[in-house]
Amino acid sequence: MPIYNAPLKDMEFILNDVFKADEFWQNTENLAHLDMATANAILEEMAKFSKNVILDLNRSADEEGGAQFNQGVVTTPKGFKEAFQQFADGGWIGLGANEAFGGQGMPKMLTVLADEMIWSTNPSFMLYPLLTVGAGMAIDQAASEEQKATYLPKFYTGEWSGTMCLTEPHSGTDLGIIKTKAEPNADGSYNITGTKIFITSGEHDLCENIIHLVLAKTPDAPAGSRGISLFIVPKFLVNEDGSLGERNTLGAGSIEHKMGIKGSATCVMNFDAAKGFLVGKENQGLAAMFIMMNYERLSMGIQGIGASEYAYQNAAQYATDRLQGRSATGVKSPEKPADSILVHGDVRRMLLNVRANNEASRAFAVYVGQQLDITKFSNDAEAVRKANDRVALLTPIAKAYLTDKALDSALEAQMCFGGHGYIREWGMEQCIRDLRISQIYEGTNGVQAIDLIGRKTIKSNGAFIAEYIAEIREFAASMNDALSIKAATLDVCHQVEALTQFIIKQAKSNPDFSNAVAVDYLHAVGLLSFTYMFARIAQAAQAKPESFYQNKLVLAQYYVAKVLPDLAARVQRIQAGAELVMQLPEDYFTAQA
Amino acid sequence: MPIYNAPLKDMEFILNDVFKADEFWQNTENLAHLDMATANAILEEMAKFSKNVILDLNRSADEEGGAQFNQGVVTTPKGFKEAFQQFADGGWIGLGANEAFGGQGMPKMLTVLADEMIWSTNPSFMLYPLLTVGAGMAIDQAASEEQKATYLPKFYTGEWSGTMCLTEPHSGTDLGIIKTKAEPNADGSYNITGTKIFITSGEHDLCENIIHLVLAKTPDAPAGSRGISLFIVPKFLVNEDGSLGERNTLGAGSIEHKMGIKGSATCVMNFDAAKGFLVGKENQGLAAMFIMMNYERLSMGIQGIGASEYAYQNAAQYATDRLQGRSATGVKSPEKPADSILVHGDVRRMLLNVRANNEASRAFAVYVGQQLDITKFSNDAEAVRKANDRVALLTPIAKAYLTDKALDSALEAQMCFGGHGYIREWGMEQCIRDLRISQIYEGTNGVQAIDLIGRKTIKSNGAFIAEYIAEIREFAASMNDALSIKAATLDVCHQVEALTQFIIKQAKSNPDFSNAVAVDYLHAVGLLSFTYMFARIAQAAQAKPESFYQNKLVLAQYYVAKVLPDLAARVQRIQAGAELVMQLPEDYFTAQA
Repeated sequence: MPIYNAPLKDMEFILNDVFKADEFWQNTENLAHLDMATANAILEEMAKFSKNVILDLNRSADEEGGAQFNQGVVTTPKGFKEAFQQFADGGWIGLGANEAFGGQGMPKMLTVLADEMIWSTNPSFMLYPLLTVGAGMAIDQAASEEQKATYLPKFYTGEWSGTMCLTEPHSGTDLGIIKTKAEPNADGSYNITGTKIFITSGEHDLCENIIHLVLAKTPDAPAGSRGISLFIVPKFLVNEDGSLGERNTLGAGSIEHKMGIKGSATCVMNFDAAKGFLVGKENQGLAAMFIMMNYERLSMGIQGIGASEYAYQNAAQYATDRLQGRSATGVKSPEKPADSILVHGDVRRMLLNVRANNEASRAFAVYVGQQLDITKFSNDAEAVRKANDRVALLTPIAKAYLTDKALDSALEAQMCFGGHGYIREWGMEQCIRDLRISQIYEGTNGVQAIDLIGRKTIKSNGAFIAEYIAEIREFAASMNDALSIKAATLDVCHQVEALTQFIIKQAKSNPDFSNAVAVDYLHAVGLLSFTYMFARIAQAAQAKPESFYQNKLVLAQYYVAKVLPDLAARVQRIQAGAELVMQLPEDYFTAQA
Repeated sequence: MPIYNAPLKDMEFILNDVFKADEFWQNTENLAHLDMATANAILEEMAKFSKNVILDLNRSADEEGGAQFNQGVVTTPKGFKEAFQQFADGGWIGLGANEAFGGQGMPKMLTVLADEMIWSTNPSFMLYPLLTVGAGMAIDQAASEEQKATYLPKFYTGEWSGTMCLTEPHSGTDLGIIKTKAEPNADGSYNITGTKIFITSGEHDLCENIIHLVLAKTPDAPAGSRGISLFIVPKFLVNEDGSLGERNTLGAGSIEHKMGIKGSATCVMNFDAAKGFLVGKENQGLAAMFIMMNYERLSMGIQGIGASEYAYQNAAQYATDRLQGRSATGVKSPEKPADSILVHGDVRRMLLNVRANNEASRAFAVYVGQQLDITKFSNDAEAVRKANDRVALLTPIAKAYLTDKALDSALEAQMCFGGHGYIREWGMEQCIRDLRISQIYEGTNGVQAIDLIGRKTIKSNGAFIAEYIAEIREFAASMNDALSIKAATLDVCHQVEALTQFIIKQAKSNPDFSNAVAVDYLHAVGLLSFTYMFARIAQAAQAKPESFYQNKLVLAQYYVAKVLPDLAARVQRIQAGAELVMQLPEDYFTAQA
């Protein structure tokens, strides 16, 4: 059976040593109640829950075929209901949510670590509270006080859950062409009519009510994405006293049969003049929904870390136990029929790639979490402005680069198992199937890359990335020259800076340029970010003699030697431009060959 | 539903224009009966069979859960039996096999193309005849005349099938530690006892008898891989008149539940003093089994091409049909609500990566097929020697590089579908699950890489690769200077040559070096090979004005600009050496973090 032990020591190292969380919290007015001891206690509790409650349910849910649909009713896999109740009772749903409505107000740099453990042990389970938390965030920031008071407390007790309803059969990335209609009623409510697809947790049996956040167009709305409004559309209407009223005219038409995350119900939702309530103002729905989308996008990155960590732990254990062949430098275990496959450089290469990915990714998630905490909790306007820009820049990296690297990593971990990695019982193949969606949903990774290169880079004339590189340079300059990653960090800064300038210039003369090189640029900025994380890790570890810390210096060197070379390929591809990408006619692609 | 149309025009181009098959066949005594018209007719027939008979069975077999096991009996998915009968009746099993025993004696450069179509449309189905063909090859080359006469004709009629039984629970890559025993009987037969796992087609209902080729150790055999013998162990013993006799004491204990290729029965096989017959001499079993293994390894590469081609065709069609967003250079389809996603550079980038992979891979498979044909059919001893060396060098590339690139490609094709790629009904997720095994079985891709860098390169002091590079240089020198790929080809030759010299030197002082950099070297030689293939494609296409040919010149340029840059990363990684890979102690990998 697959194993999992939360990497608590690494988590504390990242929080405490690398990002000096204690100091940050103490110096931030609204976080001064939190200290590392409390943070560690929270992480330890989540470590238990993830290992003892949901890990086993991950395999069983997949084996039994996942969520089941029968005439509009969705049944979640065995054990999910009890686990969800326990999760809700533990206060986990509202861990990072507004205390005024029953949340616990914990900072993001802590919640990303708690989330990682759930993503490691049961991604299908994680999706049920995840959408609720996201919907809560959107309501908290964009809805009326009455709406907040009605819905948020029920979210955080786990009595009700949330969804986001964006996609339609013909409309995914291009939300400007949605067809779902919202017709105003005399009482201020709207009648919502349309079909939404790929609705995570659209229907299930974990909660007594489900609150859908639905994008729709009012009758006179402007065309395109400027004419989209956001509505709260509850499964059961809510009476004035907060009790459940009549069933709304909406329901699940079917659930999807998917490659993975089978325990998560992915629903087709039909709205048939269902009663909905406007959130904020008409035609401003997309901005409100993007509050939720940006939260989910960071979460997808954490899904990647979680899967990659789980894959690593299982592969490292398998490689340690599996005896096969002998070391090239002489027999290592003469008492055994063969040496552990850890004697083979190729197995180590794979494991170190995954390990390096996990440690850099985790640091990066905490870093972005800290930036989000600054935007939310700081009173320093300039710090908030900078952090907002940083989050805008790095959200596509968190979503797309982390999940791209996570899939690479999980595939390498699976390969350590040889044929056994392909067999269901070892859990690795499920890990990959479950993980794959993270690159696709909440905006494909290609869409993230286009966001990074377009809205976040070219549009600001490179201001966001320039400020990020300045921070990295300043940090590197403060480092001990003896750390070899210092020079590598400064070199990457130089390369990505030059690349950015090249891109901005090319984009001016060729509108197709940015889209054609977007993914390579995303990976270049990802490599810059992970190098920066290893610089911070090395700086934090250098003075400590224990092997736990000194090994991090080796891993940082490994990263520079063996992972960072990907940058050379990315730079060459970007320099090769867009012409060859765009040159062939459309019918070339499907012509009979 | 997924689509597939065999790329017959491309196949003819590769055979006829690039590798001048007609000329080669006419000048090769034992192939002079074959011409392009016959070859095309064979490929057209297979195109029909793959599209009309087995394509639909691919999805249905997966949906119904694949092969079923019940008390030692394996039932193949619905329709497999009828399709297999049709396949056998068409003479397809023995297409490339010895005519003396009922085969059709067709050259490999043709059969690789027929095989590709089956791999495209139903990889689980393909595995049933595949193992038979491999077993037939091993018997044909290593067994006695009597054994050949007994088993081979039944293989090619499809009455009997074959397996290869190597792996045991504790013994995969390291066959030296197998435990299966072969005890000699007075009548010259042996009693075989042991458990073999991961036995493809070990038990099934398609044929009346199953002939297992089993590796086992005789009582006094030397330790390790020098003490392994090969045995024919039939499910039903064969009477002297060729009719079926008593049931042998062997059987399937269970079948594996796998990530993919669910229609293929992967069996645990228990041999309980089962009667077996020695093939060749005692202790020389591994060499005989490697006849089969090397055949299967090239086949795995073709599995990769097949999957990638299938993925491409479906993704290109989806991208053409899917309307989303508008072109950056202005609306392209004003009459539609949005443009086809082919207007976006990132979508084209993905499709062109896949297309470039398919065309280079296919050419490479035909190239290796031609080398195999020279070894088999040529009377020129020096040509045979060179071709043998070339096949030895390139078999790991065919197996591992082609399947690595195929998975990358299938993942990019899946991504073109957005969320729809994750849903079962589009077939893309099954394609990836089915394909993934190709990187793992028949020796993991890491093991292939170690074979390439060790036995095939360092051991020969670089002789094989030097001869290959000399051929490529000679070809490039003959090319028109106006073809930009000419310079790129010469440059890659130079880089891989220098890299090889560096590796041979480093390996002398560090026994761990080659294993640690093996996969990067495999990819470097793969990039060299694909560049060479595009050089040959470009040379063959250049003088022909039709867009079919001229577009190939664009694709070759695309390859150099956008795929070949990976070489820079591979070179840097190899130059970074093995030290950081090997430095950390074994317990680092599993220490609680």
